[in-house]
Amino acid sequence: MSARRPVPKAAIFRLSLYLRELERLRAETRETVSSRELGRALNLTDAQVRKDLTYFGQFGHRGVGYRVSELIPQLRHILGTDRKWNVVVLGAGNLGRALSAYRGFRNQGFNIVGLFDNDPAKIGQDVGDLTVESMDALSTTVQARDVQIAIICVPAEAAQTVTDLALRSGIPGIFNFAPVTLEVPGSTVEVSEDLAIRLEQLTFDLSKLLS
Amino acid sequence: MSARRPVPKAAIFRLSLYLRELERLRAETRETVSSRELGRALNLTDAQVRKDLTYFGQFGHRGVGYRVSELIPQLRHILGTDRKWNVVVLGAGNLGRALSAYRGFRNQGFNIVGLFDNDPAKIGQDVGDLTVESMDALSTTVQARDVQIAIICVPAEAAQTVTDLALRSGIPGIFNFAPVTLEVPGSTVEVSEDLAIRLEQLTFDLSKLLS
Repeated sequence: MSARRPVPKAAIFRLSLYLRELERLRAETRETVSSRELGRALNLTDAQVRKDLTYFGQFGHRGVGYRVSELIPQLRHILGTDRKWNVVVLGAGNLGRALSAYRGFRNQGFNIVGLFDNDPAKIGQDVGDLTVESMDALSTTVQARDVQIAIICVPAEAAQTVTDLALRSGIPGIFNFAPVTLEVPGSTVEVSEDLAIRLEQLTFDLSKLLS
Repeated sequence: MSARRPVPKAAIFRLSLYLRELERLRAETRETVSSRELGRALNLTDAQVRKDLTYFGQFGHRGVGYRVSELIPQLRHILGTDRKWNVVVLGAGNLGRALSAYRGFRNQGFNIVGLFDNDPAKIGQDVGDLTVESMDALSTTVQARDVQIAIICVPAEAAQTVTDLALRSGIPGIFNFAPVTLEVPGSTVEVSEDLAIRLEQLTFDLSKLLS
């Protein structure tokens, strides 16, 4: 099931969309779905759907299409969400607090196991089930709680320092919300979230609507 | 510059990425860039870059490539970010507070002109430059401040009600952070943000790294 050809990032993104749509279909107790139908729900051609899935194997059944209950675990395996990921949030400002409680993460198997800040006024505060811990304690926590992902929610000017600390603590995955480009070594993985990009998809449509 | 063929959503997304890369190049005082170079920076083929841009017109110059200072305003015009958008945030919990202050929005021309909640304990609180207002005041505010976009940051169970209120108040664009599918009429535009999808791109790479 491992990819032989390099997989375009956009195809990975679409796998997540297919998974969401399949989970919706399963909730409706649908058993099978065609590439055409899956594509139509997401504004894609059926050829695109088949091509995306072909990167990872043969999932369809001739004359049947895809079996919903079969394809869901296969996509989760490809995306790495068929396992639990332990996640820490670095920065206990509004965004860090919001993401610590974000239901969408828990629904997909992400456990937030720690929330850290270096502001003495915040350390010790309760945020949902968590208590804000000192950044100084990050390294020991990472070992004790088997942490694989750090979500960076500190201001832009502190993001690289905090990222370096996370990497030195042994966290291999960085999910960055700070509006800055981070430098990470090749032995680690980094994804940055730019919330304005989604807003631009809205304004693209809105411009046409309002003109 | 309007599209004659339907433009795939993924192409719009890539326009935003091209724009970010062009802005980075401009900061380095670069004057021109080829489709190959633009593609390489974003892990795309040069054919993909050219195809995406062709949806909207002819931007390249033979033997020169794209002129950075020319293409930036053209992409901003296509994406609708060459104008100011007035935005309200509905829900003054941690996420609403975080987004009200999110620098990435302001950088791209989004003005947050109001933050609303229906919790009497929150109404009247100061959040940065804003004061939390009552949801009851939304309709009059929308008229007075010429609001085009509402960011929905209320819990999932309240999201549809608050969205309906925003639409009735005359806001045509909805940017939804609640983990729920909203119903909106065809005369409006809705984009939902699922933060877990970006995390899944991280776990896709991380799974390969750790296996």
